[in-house]
Amino acid sequence: MDTLFYLPDPELCACSEVQLQGQEAKHAARVLRKKVGDIIHLANGMGCKATGEISAISKQSVSITITEKEAKARPVIQKVLGFGVIKKRDRFEFAIEKAVELGATTICLFDAERSERTRINKDRIDAIVQSAFKQSGRWWMPEIVTKNSLSDVLLDFADHEVIMAHEKKEVSANDFNISKSALLLVGPEGGFSQNEVETVENAGGRIVSLGEHRLRAETAVMALLSQFLFTR
Amino acid sequence: MDTLFYLPDPELCACSEVQLQGQEAKHAARVLRKKVGDIIHLANGMGCKATGEISAISKQSVSITITEKEAKARPVIQKVLGFGVIKKRDRFEFAIEKAVELGATTICLFDAERSERTRINKDRIDAIVQSAFKQSGRWWMPEIVTKNSLSDVLLDFADHEVIMAHEKKEVSANDFNISKSALLLVGPEGGFSQNEVETVENAGGRIVSLGEHRLRAETAVMALLSQFLFTR
Repeated sequence: MDTLFYLPDPELCACSEVQLQGQEAKHAARVLRKKVGDIIHLANGMGCKATGEISAISKQSVSITITEKEAKARPVIQKVLGFGVIKKRDRFEFAIEKAVELGATTICLFDAERSERTRINKDRIDAIVQSAFKQSGRWWMPEIVTKNSLSDVLLDFADHEVIMAHEKKEVSANDFNISKSALLLVGPEGGFSQNEVETVENAGGRIVSLGEHRLRAETAVMALLSQFLFTR
Repeated sequence: MDTLFYLPDPELCACSEVQLQGQEAKHAARVLRKKVGDIIHLANGMGCKATGEISAISKQSVSITITEKEAKARPVIQKVLGFGVIKKRDRFEFAIEKAVELGATTICLFDAERSERTRINKDRIDAIVQSAFKQSGRWWMPEIVTKNSLSDVLLDFADHEVIMAHEKKEVSANDFNISKSALLLVGPEGGFSQNEVETVENAGGRIVSLGEHRLRAETAVMALLSQFLFTR
């Protein structure tokens, strides 16, 4: 598996010479001990991937001459994960890593009524997303958005199809087809409140079950996103 | 969410009086400070769940008078996860926990050609499975099986439909319908070897893709099992 370096330059696919700096440069030069002449793969998280040859290495940066590049348009159907913040940090961070791998295009973290934790370490989340982005070979880096309540989330994605996973929904084989961008809602440890369920129902959202077993919040994130693996 | 206690007595649904012992008794009496007269929920992992009232508590055991019980037959369609052992313990154990939540009926761990770790701590795995079993409210405890190679796994589940997740398979919306018990194969960190893919193909197995992104091994476990959430 080729290591992918993250270079958030919107013009990457228009450049012939670029420079890695900061952590990514350090990782290339000191950790992986890349040398002048070595081949490097880059992604800007905005639809462009490039391959280049290292032309120079200094203490602060790695210069690369681009030899190949390819761009992909942003997916027409966006899959927005709306996830009620959960308390257990390892499970919370695991869910975010997996959401990136499983194709969420935006991750919207919000205080659900039963969320017990409200402070989010944005830097840590960004690092997890960046790492999973590189690992999964995606073209577009998911955006992270934070909101204060489910109502705020619904407002922000008002033009999206809304699908809410809810434990109390009777189990049946659900229809997970979407024809436009969708907001996929998963609640915190205690699930969504009745009030939140009604809010989604009143907004015309679909309430779905994720099968007959009780899933932890982070498992529900993965199970729900997995229903849309082939939706592009 | 009610705490479920695990009492692996095959006759649970035929008993009127049972006793919790060991860790489960300690957990009930000392951690949750249950008292005589309190209601307790039990599962034997063999299709029976029961509710009862604590009739006595001693240092070693908790006696329960059964008041309600319900039994469910073993699912006709078994979902056997065949998972090539992976090196990173936290990710390996996470995959096992999630496989229980997502409905695997058997978890078969095997040394794939690219598996880097071969020793498995059976006690730890059993504890994870038991905990996830109780948490997810399942009726049947998944069985853990270990094998030395993919060929041994295929031999053991020769009458199952075989579905292998493989990164190199071209992405298309796959057909994940199964009409009988299935063996669902996920490889270790480096994926399956060409040899292993051919072995499955020659055995009449189906090679499937899990979408366009590169998934970590534990993510592939969850994504694959999630395709069968509604298969019963």
